[in-house]
Amino acid sequence: MKILVKGVGLTKFGELWDKSLFDLSLQAATEAIQDANLSAKNIEAVFVANMIHGKLANQDLLGAAIASLFNIKGASFRVEGACASGGLAVHLAIQSLLAGTYKNVLVVGAEKMTDVTISEITSALMGAGSEAERKAGLTFPGLYALMAKTHMQKFGTTRNHLAAVSVKNHYHASLNEKAQFPFEITEEKALNSPEICMPFTLFDASPITDGAGAVILSSENTPRRRALTPSRWTAGDVYITGSAVATDTVGLAERESLVEIPATKQAAKMAVKQAGIEIADIDIAEVHDCFTIAEILAMEDLGFCEKGEGGKFIVQGTTKLGGRLPINTSGGLKACGHPVAATGLKQIIEITQQLRGSAGKRQVKDAKIGLTHNVGGSGATVVVHVLQT
Amino acid sequence: MKILVKGVGLTKFGELWDKSLFDLSLQAATEAIQDANLSAKNIEAVFVANMIHGKLANQDLLGAAIASLFNIKGASFRVEGACASGGLAVHLAIQSLLAGTYKNVLVVGAEKMTDVTISEITSALMGAGSEAERKAGLTFPGLYALMAKTHMQKFGTTRNHLAAVSVKNHYHASLNEKAQFPFEITEEKALNSPEICMPFTLFDASPITDGAGAVILSSENTPRRRALTPSRWTAGDVYITGSAVATDTVGLAERESLVEIPATKQAAKMAVKQAGIEIADIDIAEVHDCFTIAEILAMEDLGFCEKGEGGKFIVQGTTKLGGRLPINTSGGLKACGHPVAATGLKQIIEITQQLRGSAGKRQVKDAKIGLTHNVGGSGATVVVHVLQT
Repeated sequence: MKILVKGVGLTKFGELWDKSLFDLSLQAATEAIQDANLSAKNIEAVFVANMIHGKLANQDLLGAAIASLFNIKGASFRVEGACASGGLAVHLAIQSLLAGTYKNVLVVGAEKMTDVTISEITSALMGAGSEAERKAGLTFPGLYALMAKTHMQKFGTTRNHLAAVSVKNHYHASLNEKAQFPFEITEEKALNSPEICMPFTLFDASPITDGAGAVILSSENTPRRRALTPSRWTAGDVYITGSAVATDTVGLAERESLVEIPATKQAAKMAVKQAGIEIADIDIAEVHDCFTIAEILAMEDLGFCEKGEGGKFIVQGTTKLGGRLPINTSGGLKACGHPVAATGLKQIIEITQQLRGSAGKRQVKDAKIGLTHNVGGSGATVVVHVLQT
Repeated sequence: MKILVKGVGLTKFGELWDKSLFDLSLQAATEAIQDANLSAKNIEAVFVANMIHGKLANQDLLGAAIASLFNIKGASFRVEGACASGGLAVHLAIQSLLAGTYKNVLVVGAEKMTDVTISEITSALMGAGSEAERKAGLTFPGLYALMAKTHMQKFGTTRNHLAAVSVKNHYHASLNEKAQFPFEITEEKALNSPEICMPFTLFDASPITDGAGAVILSSENTPRRRALTPSRWTAGDVYITGSAVATDTVGLAERESLVEIPATKQAAKMAVKQAGIEIADIDIAEVHDCFTIAEILAMEDLGFCEKGEGGKFIVQGTTKLGGRLPINTSGGLKACGHPVAATGLKQIIEITQQLRGSAGKRQVKDAKIGLTHNVGGSGATVVVHVLQT
């Protein structure tokens, strides 16, 4: 598999009360189309990732609605898999390119989450949980807290380990102008912030965010015309070389273990195999840190460290910018923000910019192979992509 | 393109108050898996088409939820494009097979619409409209009534022409045990039923319906083992040979004409070209008759008759069972019922059964080439498939 990431576009993430879902989609997609040096009339299909706009704004049919912003008359789709919607849309767009049906497609992930009350958005997000667990009163902080508590009891993971994820990702976000929270925090601040659901305090949780990301994917292996945007394009072209999806039960109660996400293991194994690499070859990754424990689980389940060692692995500094394997240089879901369906796109965009050498103040040196890891629900759907330059 | 329809399964359509969305999905998918002579463990990906369950039941992530009913750990997706969701899911499933990523995939379309009040479901369905037209107070009966009124003024189409669609489709439904309304009606009854939105009376509109349909699609060109279900399998294997999607504006106000659906023309042209046939080669079709005028527009825009002649074409009897080109032998959306995202699946299933020779009392003789036409919104997204035996 060799799918060219021909163009990328990303809005600022945050509480963007003056922008609609369509404003954000238009901005990200226009930037991606320009970055690809394409005209909208060359785009044959539009894949829109969105979880929540039907519920909150009663607007469905977003594939056609967003395609129409560009007068695109080709195919259009909306893809949903809760917080994995973005990754799933990229995976399906790739299938249509591999099939030879389309040559250039636009994938947009967009979410508008801050225009409603906290109770409305909390309720809407629980659509990604199982009916039984939702009705039993579990929320996502509660579900991930169960995993964190179990991991702490079984492996000796501590609240300091959890805080280290947050401190690292806030440091990365402080170097990213698109981040919702572009500032550093101390371990003390993380540990002493208000309790959300023990063992989590405020800084263990990713926020509610507006934002959009867009990519142009192409089956054409001809490089972009580099002269047009030299400042943003200093390394070689970036290709997606692996794309895999795995599924598990929606409810945690039906799983065998609370300390692993089997779908992460399965998707990673398949994507890495497709790319013809080993997991040890990965130079950089964006992983799904919806809660700090999720990044620890991702380190273990992706195979970056042994099971149970994720907390210690992170405090060693290996995954901080400057370390051997920088993780979530964008700031992650925690500090860059988490506009649900846009997250999968932002991950692809961050890795693309890093491999292009256009990541500015947070540039990782000599990164050649990157990975993205996007999770829906509490591990019901996982999408892993491998990108190479 | 040659994609085998390896198995099909369909629930009864109707007001199924004792069945949940998952009950219906399980039933249709189990039947399709058995019909394909497969085990669930051979299914590598599950595509779920659904429009409305997130809004009405706050359940998203339906790809994983329905895959988990069968303990399927492969890929899972939800695809949405309002009333075209089913056709879009089939199109994307086909892409993944053509790409060579998966060999056997399950596509489920399911909708549970009758458990809420009429005001709730009417509001939820307007998510398929444009924000401006929704806020202006337009409903789908209103949008299609605008098209009908214009067609009547421009081409002399009459209420009798509209009623003929309903009478024919009710006749077909009277031969279909899965239909929501398996009874005949007279032209007089159609014309004198309560007014909905002039020129429409009750019998011009498709109903609110619960139901699910499922198909197993396969890139393997090996025929099914026919011995297992001889009674249901008397003709050859059925293949999808064309699959195309086209897009238009969501709002009617942005269109140039109220008497055509350009996306239907475009999708039909592409699908027929892919299949290597002419539109005149079609023996049978299931078209999207959400309102009677929609079937008239479909006849014209698919190229079965000239623009403006759709009404007269239908009253000639050509499209009635026994005629040269039977249309909507299932009973169509009008009389078989319209569980939104299940409709695209039901269309594929009906044509498959007809081409297999297993359509029972409504069997069309010697049908070799069939077409399905699935519309989202008021023509914003159209999916056309060509099936051949």
